[in-house]
Amino acid sequence: MKNTRKFELTEKEMPTQWYNIHADMPNKTLPPLHPGTGLPLGPQDLVGLFPMELIKQEVSMEPFIDIPEEVLEIYKIWRPSPLIRARNLEKLLNTPAKIYYKNESVSPPGSHKPNTAVPQAYYNYKEGIKRITTETGAGQWGSALAFAAQFFGIEVKVFMVKVSYNQKPYRKSMMNVWGADVTPSPSPYTETGRKILAEDPDCPGNLGIAISEAVEMAAKDPGTKYSLGSVLNHVLMHQTIIGEEALKQFEKAQDYPDIVIGCFGGGSNFAGISFPFLRGNLRNGNKTRCIAVEPTSCPKLTRGKFMYDFGDSVGLTPLIPMFTLGHDFMPPKIHAGGLRYHGAGAIVSQLLKDKIIEAASVNQLESFDAGIKFARTEGIIPAPESTHAIAQVIKEAEKCRIEGTEKTILFNLSGHGLIDLGAYDQYFGGLLHDYETTDEEIRESLQKLEKIAV
Amino acid sequence: MKNTRKFELTEKEMPTQWYNIHADMPNKTLPPLHPGTGLPLGPQDLVGLFPMELIKQEVSMEPFIDIPEEVLEIYKIWRPSPLIRARNLEKLLNTPAKIYYKNESVSPPGSHKPNTAVPQAYYNYKEGIKRITTETGAGQWGSALAFAAQFFGIEVKVFMVKVSYNQKPYRKSMMNVWGADVTPSPSPYTETGRKILAEDPDCPGNLGIAISEAVEMAAKDPGTKYSLGSVLNHVLMHQTIIGEEALKQFEKAQDYPDIVIGCFGGGSNFAGISFPFLRGNLRNGNKTRCIAVEPTSCPKLTRGKFMYDFGDSVGLTPLIPMFTLGHDFMPPKIHAGGLRYHGAGAIVSQLLKDKIIEAASVNQLESFDAGIKFARTEGIIPAPESTHAIAQVIKEAEKCRIEGTEKTILFNLSGHGLIDLGAYDQYFGGLLHDYETTDEEIRESLQKLEKIAV
Repeated sequence: MKNTRKFELTEKEMPTQWYNIHADMPNKTLPPLHPGTGLPLGPQDLVGLFPMELIKQEVSMEPFIDIPEEVLEIYKIWRPSPLIRARNLEKLLNTPAKIYYKNESVSPPGSHKPNTAVPQAYYNYKEGIKRITTETGAGQWGSALAFAAQFFGIEVKVFMVKVSYNQKPYRKSMMNVWGADVTPSPSPYTETGRKILAEDPDCPGNLGIAISEAVEMAAKDPGTKYSLGSVLNHVLMHQTIIGEEALKQFEKAQDYPDIVIGCFGGGSNFAGISFPFLRGNLRNGNKTRCIAVEPTSCPKLTRGKFMYDFGDSVGLTPLIPMFTLGHDFMPPKIHAGGLRYHGAGAIVSQLLKDKIIEAASVNQLESFDAGIKFARTEGIIPAPESTHAIAQVIKEAEKCRIEGTEKTILFNLSGHGLIDLGAYDQYFGGLLHDYETTDEEIRESLQKLEKIAV
Repeated sequence: MKNTRKFELTEKEMPTQWYNIHADMPNKTLPPLHPGTGLPLGPQDLVGLFPMELIKQEVSMEPFIDIPEEVLEIYKIWRPSPLIRARNLEKLLNTPAKIYYKNESVSPPGSHKPNTAVPQAYYNYKEGIKRITTETGAGQWGSALAFAAQFFGIEVKVFMVKVSYNQKPYRKSMMNVWGADVTPSPSPYTETGRKILAEDPDCPGNLGIAISEAVEMAAKDPGTKYSLGSVLNHVLMHQTIIGEEALKQFEKAQDYPDIVIGCFGGGSNFAGISFPFLRGNLRNGNKTRCIAVEPTSCPKLTRGKFMYDFGDSVGLTPLIPMFTLGHDFMPPKIHAGGLRYHGAGAIVSQLLKDKIIEAASVNQLESFDAGIKFARTEGIIPAPESTHAIAQVIKEAEKCRIEGTEKTILFNLSGHGLIDLGAYDQYFGGLLHDYETTDEEIRESLQKLEKIAV
């Protein structure tokens, strides 16, 4: 293995099943609750929004689910993604640790998001759906769904938070190139949007409003479904292709990770890289530490509370058992837009509650500093989200140096930062800073939550 | 090979030599001439600008040159690049042709440029050089050199055409992340720049001025050398790693191209993909057609003249025997900035003169239309430069459909368009148009050239 840098799989070696960790969890997740009645949700409550196959996957207890042939064909455009030994970063850190990363930035939209966008588009297509609505903040998810849906002739309507629509024109352009229709939200196309615009024509929008618009449009039209890019069980499961590939690649490397690290927004990229390794912990007594890394300014895992909360900010979605800061919590405007989310998916929350995974947090400035160290050694400019994972890797690798332990560390490079270069500019210009989230703020936001009658 | 999409090589299978086509050419290139004396240039004339190893490569007649171990190590960050069968595009075009592309967009800077930036930085490093100057227009070359030089601790000073510096902030940001110093040109740091700014403080700059500034700074400081991203023999040779890999990948595909297509600016990506296949033509009597595709608005290959001309617009560089429109020719502002160059490298020009390669031209609107077809079938958004190759591929594939011939077509996807999405926006907005270059314009520009005393 001397000097080998990339551990690659051929198309033929690509895993053909996703891993459903729910089957192996000692404690299953609590059921989601209907936002109106507070009663456990049945599959029929979701039929208006999702195709039946995804609803089945959402509640499945099968440990493995076959990836359809048509999905594998599209995965092959960029998968299997390489596992890379970060030899230059190791050298810079002068650490005995071995650092590997899974490079998910190689997908055409530049992130791990298409891993679930493609199967979601496929299952909708199989059930005759001609149109999907979704929301997007910074645009990573919207562009992944636009990319995926075109292969199945499905129209995509993206509600993009208006302030991002104006600030991040390149993401909107990507969606247009792939044929999606992008509307700044709030929009005049939904009741929610019209109501908000009537009150405040200059409303800059937020993710909660965009979700409401996308859900409303899908709910009102039987031929239209809705799609979400993180949080839900089936979304996290689709991402396990990342870790399943990594398992095979570590065989080729004749190595195995002691530590697996992923940044954390709703949980999808962290789940994707870590769940297949957690299988080894749960079934075979392996001791791989899996660390979810969030921004210190949005600390649901490290400082939030485990309770039922809405998936959106408005209160339209089912109540999910999760680590949360309260759906009213407004994260500061850090550049890692994909990590600005108040809660965590149900499975990841249960795993954290049961101490099967760990959580850590990283500040904005140290994350950019880590991102630049990575770009200047490994050559790839990471997305602001991914820099959080890198910052944690550096901490662990430095601990190895101090302790003189040769640990094997794996992290997920969830995306590249080529569409986020403005953020790096601001960092170099000294315009970025860290945000302090006080205990008071978190307590207040959670107090409102406790008043929800469930 | 049924359904195989990607033909990949492992790191171990990566070619370890570049191919120098000059060795196999029936007619060698005419010698470059000194801009002052008009006499053939000797190696000593270039010592101030380039390290000796690159000067040797520039004039070498060895058919193969070993790629240094240190360069191979960095190539491995993104190489070998995949050869991909464009099955979805074939389906869209309903053609019996088989279409393959070499995906050079997978490099961290997003284009083929690092294939030469890395060895250029390496040979400078080996000779103790601590600083390199270069110019960049849209920023592809500057970012590739910034990426490459950091691995060898070399400082890079990029003179970026001022109008691009202001219009394309993301390219500048990329260079900053990789540690390069980027200055809008004309700048106050050179005599050339100061003189121009004194006359016109608002001068928007152009590539000719930027070259002059970079060359002046390198020439005045013995510890500083200069680097160029295309045109020169050694630059084209470094790019042959693309075609050498493709040769091995076609063995795996059990196929061989009848037609090889690359877009054409100064010649480097076209040379990279085609020269190794031309070796089969020159040595073994193969009949692969190699087509260089230029914009119709900058038609040096299809409507220019073969004569001695300067490499830059100002007249500081040696005189090179080339197909040219005249160094005064001002190409219209098409979005394929990398193809806006008045001339062609000496080797490619000689090959065209000897009818060993072919040339074709494509309009701006048809190139964007082709780029969108590609993005919506193969999923990758191509650089505006690369869309010219794709447009030609579509023409050839349609000819195959009409004639019912099953040809194998290979093209080079020289880069992705993620930093150029503004151009796609303008296309969708109906803001782009084609440019007519009249015979009169070309004649005028060439007439001035004929007055150069050589």
